[in-house]
Amino acid sequence: MKILIEIAYVGTSFAGFQVQPSLPTVQSALQDALERVYGERYPVKGCSRTDSGVHARQYFATYDTDRALPCDRIPLALNSSLPEDISVRSARVVPDEFHVRHDVEMKEYEYIFHASKIRDPFLRGRVCETQPLSDEQLGRMRDAASRIVGRKDFASFMASGSKIADTVRDVKYCELTRDGELVKLRIAADGFLYNMVRIIAGTLLDVARGRFEPEELDAIISARDRSRAGFTAPPEGLYLAKVLLKL
Amino acid sequence: MKILIEIAYVGTSFAGFQVQPSLPTVQSALQDALERVYGERYPVKGCSRTDSGVHARQYFATYDTDRALPCDRIPLALNSSLPEDISVRSARVVPDEFHVRHDVEMKEYEYIFHASKIRDPFLRGRVCETQPLSDEQLGRMRDAASRIVGRKDFASFMASGSKIADTVRDVKYCELTRDGELVKLRIAADGFLYNMVRIIAGTLLDVARGRFEPEELDAIISARDRSRAGFTAPPEGLYLAKVLLKL
Repeated sequence: MKILIEIAYVGTSFAGFQVQPSLPTVQSALQDALERVYGERYPVKGCSRTDSGVHARQYFATYDTDRALPCDRIPLALNSSLPEDISVRSARVVPDEFHVRHDVEMKEYEYIFHASKIRDPFLRGRVCETQPLSDEQLGRMRDAASRIVGRKDFASFMASGSKIADTVRDVKYCELTRDGELVKLRIAADGFLYNMVRIIAGTLLDVARGRFEPEELDAIISARDRSRAGFTAPPEGLYLAKVLLKL
Repeated sequence: MKILIEIAYVGTSFAGFQVQPSLPTVQSALQDALERVYGERYPVKGCSRTDSGVHARQYFATYDTDRALPCDRIPLALNSSLPEDISVRSARVVPDEFHVRHDVEMKEYEYIFHASKIRDPFLRGRVCETQPLSDEQLGRMRDAASRIVGRKDFASFMASGSKIADTVRDVKYCELTRDGELVKLRIAADGFLYNMVRIIAGTLLDVARGRFEPEELDAIISARDRSRAGFTAPPEGLYLAKVLLKL
């Protein structure tokens, strides 16, 4: 049977989700923990490839097993074998034909800026440190962000070198909120291109700093050219926040 | 002249504030950073000895210098030389006779429990993980906490082996609040005995679990005997939160 687990992890110590030779990854940590719990090594599939240093508040993964470990015991069993920066929150049986990457209906990412002259040690590795942002700068970022919403071709916001042919994605919302020194970008879509959220976050920061005018976003999108958009914001501010599965 | 700096730090990687041979401490990190900035080694005095793993949201320290580095440049200069888990927030000149440990009027500590069956990887090293707490259990903890407030002899809440003679302290408030799975103890006093907040936090958790009745706190306090109180809660849940200086 196929087991779906819901996990969360702090990405700082991992070279992303996917197994890489001789590097610590979330996938290999899960496979190691499953082996300790079940006595057998199972391949784990994840709902998304996250980069090195990127975090997940909600992430789904699946594995197949023929051992009848009750689902309500799986989280504690796995958590006692996992590093403390990964936590399994729940587990359930799903149909064998379910595919945890293809059967994603929507994903929401958060990108968090700490806009302050003085860094906060409690936010280390968890935010993008940047200079203070005025209300006017935040207004410019919001104007630019609103132009990203909709079904569009986001080729300008895909890391160069990616081999994806279909670069059209449907962005449901792209919003900025401020909570004191924290400025948070929330963006949801049916899917994301490689580095898309980090390039959008970097471009919005470029808009705040005056490198671009907010209305230039329309031309940047139409150009379908990575070199027209802004810089790729660092991974530590990025969180996979919500994943809506077709289940 | 004497410079007062306001700092914050994540205690996880430090063996407490005070210098210890061949261990990383906040004091030695500050002294190293000052040496890089001023080209001279200055002894640093801190407002409080915090233990290994204990955090500070607000902490004050002083050093003496005859170099005229402008105070508004000190935070950035030091922060660029400090490890990222320490941050200098502000600096100012204080009278030479000011003593950063003796001239403390009040300190507030926070102790944070994450009361959940499932650990949260984002709170690792930042909270005391414990089982879920019902409203009834929280009510018991609040009843017990209210008995701690006032000018009392807190010898029962001092780590055994401490050599402090005067164990009377004036606790201004001792309150518990809940925010979802987080239960936060806030306690302020004119001073604290060694491990006092951690022993109070552990005793309150013992009250929640039924080891003590809330009204037994009165007898535990009167006994002036460490063995009568509860366990010493772990350091990672403890934050020095506010320090009110006589300035």
